[in-house]
Amino acid sequence: MRRFRLALAQINTTVGDLEGNSAKILDYIYRARQLRADLVAFPELAITGYPPEDLLFKPSFIRDNRRKLDEIIGHCQGITAVIGFVDAQGDIHNAAAVAHNGRLVGTYHKMFLPNYGVFDEDRYFKAGSSCPVFVINGVSVGVNICEDIWYATGPTTLQRELGAEVIININASPYHAGKRGFREKMLATRANDNELFVAYVNLVGGQDELVFDGGSMVFNEKGDLLTLGKQFEEDMVLADLDADDVFRYRLHDSRPRKDRSPFGEGVVTSQRIVVSQQPSSLDKALLAQDKMKPLDYEAEVYSALVLGTRDYVRKNGFQKVLIGLSGGIDSSFTAMVAVDALGKENVVGVTMPSRFSSEESISDSKWLASNLGIPCWVIPIEDPFVGFLEALKEPFKGTQPNVAEENVQARVRGDILMALSNKFGWLVLTTGNKSEMATGYCTLYGDMAGGFAVIKDVPKTLVYRLSAYRNQQAGKELIPRTVMEKEPTAELRPNQKDTDSLPPYPVLDPILQAYVEEDKSWDEIVSMGFDEATVKRVIRMVDTNEYKRRQAPPGVKITPRAFGRDRRLPIVNRYRGW
Amino acid sequence: MRRFRLALAQINTTVGDLEGNSAKILDYIYRARQLRADLVAFPELAITGYPPEDLLFKPSFIRDNRRKLDEIIGHCQGITAVIGFVDAQGDIHNAAAVAHNGRLVGTYHKMFLPNYGVFDEDRYFKAGSSCPVFVINGVSVGVNICEDIWYATGPTTLQRELGAEVIININASPYHAGKRGFREKMLATRANDNELFVAYVNLVGGQDELVFDGGSMVFNEKGDLLTLGKQFEEDMVLADLDADDVFRYRLHDSRPRKDRSPFGEGVVTSQRIVVSQQPSSLDKALLAQDKMKPLDYEAEVYSALVLGTRDYVRKNGFQKVLIGLSGGIDSSFTAMVAVDALGKENVVGVTMPSRFSSEESISDSKWLASNLGIPCWVIPIEDPFVGFLEALKEPFKGTQPNVAEENVQARVRGDILMALSNKFGWLVLTTGNKSEMATGYCTLYGDMAGGFAVIKDVPKTLVYRLSAYRNQQAGKELIPRTVMEKEPTAELRPNQKDTDSLPPYPVLDPILQAYVEEDKSWDEIVSMGFDEATVKRVIRMVDTNEYKRRQAPPGVKITPRAFGRDRRLPIVNRYRGW
Repeated sequence: MRRFRLALAQINTTVGDLEGNSAKILDYIYRARQLRADLVAFPELAITGYPPEDLLFKPSFIRDNRRKLDEIIGHCQGITAVIGFVDAQGDIHNAAAVAHNGRLVGTYHKMFLPNYGVFDEDRYFKAGSSCPVFVINGVSVGVNICEDIWYATGPTTLQRELGAEVIININASPYHAGKRGFREKMLATRANDNELFVAYVNLVGGQDELVFDGGSMVFNEKGDLLTLGKQFEEDMVLADLDADDVFRYRLHDSRPRKDRSPFGEGVVTSQRIVVSQQPSSLDKALLAQDKMKPLDYEAEVYSALVLGTRDYVRKNGFQKVLIGLSGGIDSSFTAMVAVDALGKENVVGVTMPSRFSSEESISDSKWLASNLGIPCWVIPIEDPFVGFLEALKEPFKGTQPNVAEENVQARVRGDILMALSNKFGWLVLTTGNKSEMATGYCTLYGDMAGGFAVIKDVPKTLVYRLSAYRNQQAGKELIPRTVMEKEPTAELRPNQKDTDSLPPYPVLDPILQAYVEEDKSWDEIVSMGFDEATVKRVIRMVDTNEYKRRQAPPGVKITPRAFGRDRRLPIVNRYRGW
Repeated sequence: MRRFRLALAQINTTVGDLEGNSAKILDYIYRARQLRADLVAFPELAITGYPPEDLLFKPSFIRDNRRKLDEIIGHCQGITAVIGFVDAQGDIHNAAAVAHNGRLVGTYHKMFLPNYGVFDEDRYFKAGSSCPVFVINGVSVGVNICEDIWYATGPTTLQRELGAEVIININASPYHAGKRGFREKMLATRANDNELFVAYVNLVGGQDELVFDGGSMVFNEKGDLLTLGKQFEEDMVLADLDADDVFRYRLHDSRPRKDRSPFGEGVVTSQRIVVSQQPSSLDKALLAQDKMKPLDYEAEVYSALVLGTRDYVRKNGFQKVLIGLSGGIDSSFTAMVAVDALGKENVVGVTMPSRFSSEESISDSKWLASNLGIPCWVIPIEDPFVGFLEALKEPFKGTQPNVAEENVQARVRGDILMALSNKFGWLVLTTGNKSEMATGYCTLYGDMAGGFAVIKDVPKTLVYRLSAYRNQQAGKELIPRTVMEKEPTAELRPNQKDTDSLPPYPVLDPILQAYVEEDKSWDEIVSMGFDEATVKRVIRMVDTNEYKRRQAPPGVKITPRAFGRDRRLPIVNRYRGW
């Protein structure tokens, strides 16, 4: 028996906070040593936070990150630590340091650099070309980084050939709904194909539009999931392995193996680095393996929204947030997320009735606020609205009221929220959903005004579903039934309904998903069973509203393709596709 | 003598306008044939426009672009055409088609894909691995694309080894001040090092934040510039070459040559493709070579702003623009650019005095408008401002007037402009300069509200310089002297001056350039001779205002690093560097 205790330090780092991130790393190293772990692993780029983006172009940033690594290495005694950092060797590399007893025993450079979706790693990093395997307390350990393990052949294959029995794969893998299942399947396959333990440690926390969901995992050589860490929370995930399991499994596995390097001959170098041949002391008691039950779909998405909101607000140094409450489902849901993220004492609701607002809008806003335990300020917009009509009387002479006057109201509300924000130092959360962002059914500088757009990647139909989930989970109506059941309206003119401008949401949302997230063409979408005129109208709305989205605040990505860095469409764009 | 007539079709394409771009390409092929050119070359991705960004993920877009290419090839008779398009061969390639007499005789795939600055080509394209040389009317021609020629060894080297006498390098090279000179030196070196003609054809026109400046060039084997096309305008650039010049030069050139492939052995394939051995008919009269004088610095930057503005407005389908005039230099300059871009009949000035506005602000706005021949509407903001103060009376009780009340005024102005925009369908141009965008000395949803930010990449000191240039060029005061000479103020409170919040611009701008464009650290900037406290204050302002810039409208890039896609900093960012 060659027992090996792994500790996966699933920490919440902050981009650029070299000091804070390093302090946290030291703390977890200390705790892992207390737990008698042989090795503690940290997420990808743990020292800098992920993604550091163009901070990577600052030589001082690279230098400071290296200094912090050296400090940490100095404190790394009686344990081996795997730490994500930026290595400068001529070019810069997305790297993992392997530290042991105050010494840097080796460095791995990420070989597969993602440059799609939200990722721009080719912009910054040079790919690695070396696959070391470390012998740690008598066990052979290969280290690689995130994307490296998503390919069937890659560093893991080479490290297995060099004798690796355990792979430590360090990650900063952004969340979208359903991704955890993919990861689990892929990692199980990778572990079993290579007949070794795979330990996957993921970052946790929000960074601008991204949420990293944690959920670190350890698999055995048969591809069984041994351990699953918490999702959306910091965690120290522990696993006791017996490396002899790998030896036995390989002896008895009769599947033919055709190992071959995925890289050109001589392109990649490999070496075994002996850190310590001395086996791990066996007197420590075996730990129970933690195996959290994965969250259901709604709980997962909801947790992502809560964590993304909390971290954006807190990491930007804000204490409180402001939300304009309209009495509709979107603002109600946003307020509920905010309360779950920040506590009710840090959320202020503001309802801003106009001459077109119904009584129910105000009473529903108050009811919601009371359910959530937050204040609901009432600030009527009539005075500034009349002021604008007065100021615009001359230039608007002879015109009919239209979207111009409607938008003035939305902008007055935006201005009031921003004035309160400027006065009290609270961040404004906007309340627009993905269906609105996609179609441009929102007012630039009006309801789009604010610092963070909590549900900008949540389609309207999913807002309902998540509201119902949270109400049910609470065992009472947080969002009032009247809010759940009323017909959506912007209330910017008498008797306005969303369906005056948009197809019903159960029709709209699948069209949007097909077009925005899956790049389907109009005829493919029509063949899914939708009306041709409707499909073309929706596509046209999406395309012509790129300019609005370009000026939208960031918000939490929860789908495979969010607006923002994830989807880069030109504003000037004459392509129609029919 | 082996005479060869080149036509470089420096056209202004529109992203996504496959129909319009193709019609233009056909028109220029027709004109080039009338001019008896042997070969006509179009810019990079001429069929799709550049950069098509995530349109490239739509299979229908790739298919439609290919159909357009086939149509063009069918019409390509009696001439060889080199046409940028997207080639789908499993993966997609940034490609150049070589068409002759209705046939696609070959395709080149870009080998060096830029993935820095504003470029994301690794996100989309697979790099090419083949370097054909085409024999056209008895002359050997290598074709490659943009970035390919920026490296000392690359496809040009390989094509020269295969006998190329002429290189056609097709481009979509975005403008920044001073880049043209770099290009010219680099291309001259490339031509002379490889002892061949280099024909560089560049795109012209604005696309979102980018301006392509044209200025196509032809060099002979000695590196002499033979021809320079127009800058910032469409042009058909012609050059008569004698391929025997190359033969003679190589015979007499005694410099040692060490040709070697920059690629691994066997990685790149090459072949000679004979299109036509028949020499060009010699009866055509030699053309005079056009050689435009390159524009001076101010003229160049000013032209970029004019073209970028015109194309953003027109390509988005707008006829008229609105500009808020404050009586200051920025709005005056923006209005002047707009008039030069769109004609005075398409520009409307609006001055929106407040209780803090000076008499001069209104009279200077009117004076400027009169100089430019545009209307100057006067819409006082007092009524809506009072409306806001009334609405906010209760929540603001017990607080002192501060930036909250100041920003309300800026936002009232933004709302008025947007209301006029919504009512009349005119685009709002914003007037903030780069110094303000960098430091956050601007109001989100206030003076930042609008569709296009003409001078967002122009530092304040350069705004003065360009204003003086344009006044001088006009031979009269377009921008009144009083505007040029007054001290900058936002006029949001009594006696406010920019220097209350910012260092003087002649100090601020070089610090910003060092920090934003050159990634210098605070101590490096201090060592340039600036005060430490000032430098740190400026850096802090730049870093903490990323959230504002993220919601800013696009504007013309004129420096080596603009805000926008060019500079990707996180909003959540705790790095300070000291």
